[in-house]
Amino acid sequence: MSLIVQKYGGTSVGTPERIKAVAARVKAWRDRGHQVVVVVSAMSGETDRLLALAKSVQTRPLLRELDVLLATGEQVTIALLSMALDEIRCPARSYTGAQVHILTDSAHSKARIRDIDAARVQADLAAGRVVVVAGFQGVDETGNITTLGRGGSDTSAVALAAALKADECQIYTDVDGVYTTDPRIEPRARRLARITFEEMLEMASLGSKVLQIRSVEFAGKYRVPLRVLSSFGEGEGTLITFEEGSVEEAKIAGIAFARDEAKLTLLGVPDQPGVAHRILGPIAEANIEVDMIVQNVAADEATTDFTFTVHRNDYPRAYEILEHAAAELGARQVVGDERIVKVSLVGVGMRSHAGIASKMFAALAKEGINIRMISTSEIKISVVIDERYLELGVRALHEAFDLDTAAA
Amino acid sequence: MSLIVQKYGGTSVGTPERIKAVAARVKAWRDRGHQVVVVVSAMSGETDRLLALAKSVQTRPLLRELDVLLATGEQVTIALLSMALDEIRCPARSYTGAQVHILTDSAHSKARIRDIDAARVQADLAAGRVVVVAGFQGVDETGNITTLGRGGSDTSAVALAAALKADECQIYTDVDGVYTTDPRIEPRARRLARITFEEMLEMASLGSKVLQIRSVEFAGKYRVPLRVLSSFGEGEGTLITFEEGSVEEAKIAGIAFARDEAKLTLLGVPDQPGVAHRILGPIAEANIEVDMIVQNVAADEATTDFTFTVHRNDYPRAYEILEHAAAELGARQVVGDERIVKVSLVGVGMRSHAGIASKMFAALAKEGINIRMISTSEIKISVVIDERYLELGVRALHEAFDLDTAAA
Repeated sequence: MSLIVQKYGGTSVGTPERIKAVAARVKAWRDRGHQVVVVVSAMSGETDRLLALAKSVQTRPLLRELDVLLATGEQVTIALLSMALDEIRCPARSYTGAQVHILTDSAHSKARIRDIDAARVQADLAAGRVVVVAGFQGVDETGNITTLGRGGSDTSAVALAAALKADECQIYTDVDGVYTTDPRIEPRARRLARITFEEMLEMASLGSKVLQIRSVEFAGKYRVPLRVLSSFGEGEGTLITFEEGSVEEAKIAGIAFARDEAKLTLLGVPDQPGVAHRILGPIAEANIEVDMIVQNVAADEATTDFTFTVHRNDYPRAYEILEHAAAELGARQVVGDERIVKVSLVGVGMRSHAGIASKMFAALAKEGINIRMISTSEIKISVVIDERYLELGVRALHEAFDLDTAAA
Repeated sequence: MSLIVQKYGGTSVGTPERIKAVAARVKAWRDRGHQVVVVVSAMSGETDRLLALAKSVQTRPLLRELDVLLATGEQVTIALLSMALDEIRCPARSYTGAQVHILTDSAHSKARIRDIDAARVQADLAAGRVVVVAGFQGVDETGNITTLGRGGSDTSAVALAAALKADECQIYTDVDGVYTTDPRIEPRARRLARITFEEMLEMASLGSKVLQIRSVEFAGKYRVPLRVLSSFGEGEGTLITFEEGSVEEAKIAGIAFARDEAKLTLLGVPDQPGVAHRILGPIAEANIEVDMIVQNVAADEATTDFTFTVHRNDYPRAYEILEHAAAELGARQVVGDERIVKVSLVGVGMRSHAGIASKMFAALAKEGINIRMISTSEIKISVVIDERYLELGVRALHEAFDLDTAAA
């Protein structure tokens, strides 16, 4: 017998019929002798409906009250799922975040979990009940309702798994696991049976939005084995593991990419200390997130070229800010490109194997794809290329690294 | 400065626009220097929507989980109203029943309030904030969410007013007070400026559904001055008071009526001790509420006729049960009529004034209305008449007792 925490997202509980299907799945696990804790999100569409209601009474809704409002979304789901379980004779009991005392800080709309009182859940499990917990929400020290921000249900599930010392935390979603890349772009993309936490972090942050990145960090920190699997089909999904595996295993886990990027370059900046800060300071103040940053020595050696990427939505504002900075710094020119994408190779095997970068660049060159920027970390290599080459680039790399056939 | 508890029902908070209107009204009271606690219901239609969701996963929803589900209705309203108040610069804070610790027993779906922790509310009031509390809900000793049953928001408001020793509990609704009778039947019906608690109890239980009867009992028990007024118009509404007023005042407060009644009679029941119990026991076991009960001696003196009324929805089931009882008891026959209504005269003045009953019967006889059953209490006289005479009967009594002109 093992203790399993399962998390079902908004699509998985999007209709009464799907809630019944989740109940059947949960019951099957319990019938096999496992103790099951279920964490659920709001039914799909519900959070947007509530947000629209909030905005109809206040342009910028008060965050404390927005949390009170949004927390009802998951509360509806826990009640319905517990009823559906009871209906098929699987004893169950629902708890809101406050009831199971998911203690958070007081940062409304983006609270962080501090502690969970596992005793109440354990008592129910010992009594043979399935415990259904509202994801995404908690309560602060003075009893105010808080939310963890969108996608926070994953974090709730991982935190519960950690507090309960669960054997596995299963994240049910609308995909059946983590793939070597997006199958919509490369039909030969293959589901990975395993992936390391580090790889998963890079894949998630780079646009393979299977899991919320904070929940992966959380699972890594508390060493909770995490599994991503489909709430509609069967299958083992992808286990996110702590072991790096044997040397025979694949060097590359997969190819992540981010569309909707844009890059900005300040040409001919005087090459002095503090310049980078004077360029990026106003960007940060405008709450624009910067992704890749590259600085190169320019032709005349007294100046430098400074390039960074932002989300495409932020491009016009970033461009404007940069023009001010250019004038102040005496830079020569601002140039930008809002039709670029980022493609990244991710894999822990990269650490011990030279030549991956050159193999990557060769594969892209062979297809005539020009690389605009390069950035590397221990387990990933990212390149910026023209938007129109995204699909071609991903497929070329998938093939070059034999991702459709490699042992996972 | 006084402390006022205001309660707004589902229709009053049915849309974002109406919530904004309630916010403006609340702010106006606060601007006049009062401390204000607001109790709200779920937006109209929301409870029905949630009930339908519940029934789509479980035919007879588990009551514990149904309470978790339904409690979200008011939670949505408290958040939206607090936002709307904040938007017009009126500081406010929302609380669920659990947060403000409305302690109830554990009778899910019909819990009774045991205690309220007023400290948190008082701290907010002292800080100059309006406190917005979810009506209809509470929490039991082990932290389970409970609900007080439909209409329980009135009870929440009265209980809060009692706990806070409020100067007045104002129930805002879609009518502007308590009328001498339903104005849709008698256009000359007149709003009462005052009514006693006893009269209000009889009016409410007899079908003038302005206030939930339990909340009136509660207010009477804790001597909370209660006022019914309109959330859409202006006006003083009706104050429900403890004083009976001077002898000059009206003997009759109003005319209540109940449609959808049905009556059943067991003819020729052996006149023995225990017979009434053997007839009504199975009816009570089937959870059918019985209203009026009348027993008459029958022609042959060894038997009796036993008549009672039930809600029309329960008529077929009650009839069936009665046929079994008739066979067991050796009664002669079961007869029934499902096209009857009950009309009642209510007024504390009735106690000290003889002749009201005969005046009532005369007024009905003058219109050719046959009286099927009569039942009396200290402050009311009820008659059962044929359904088709309802409007005529009410108007005849309204005129006979000068209710359109009497001083309130």
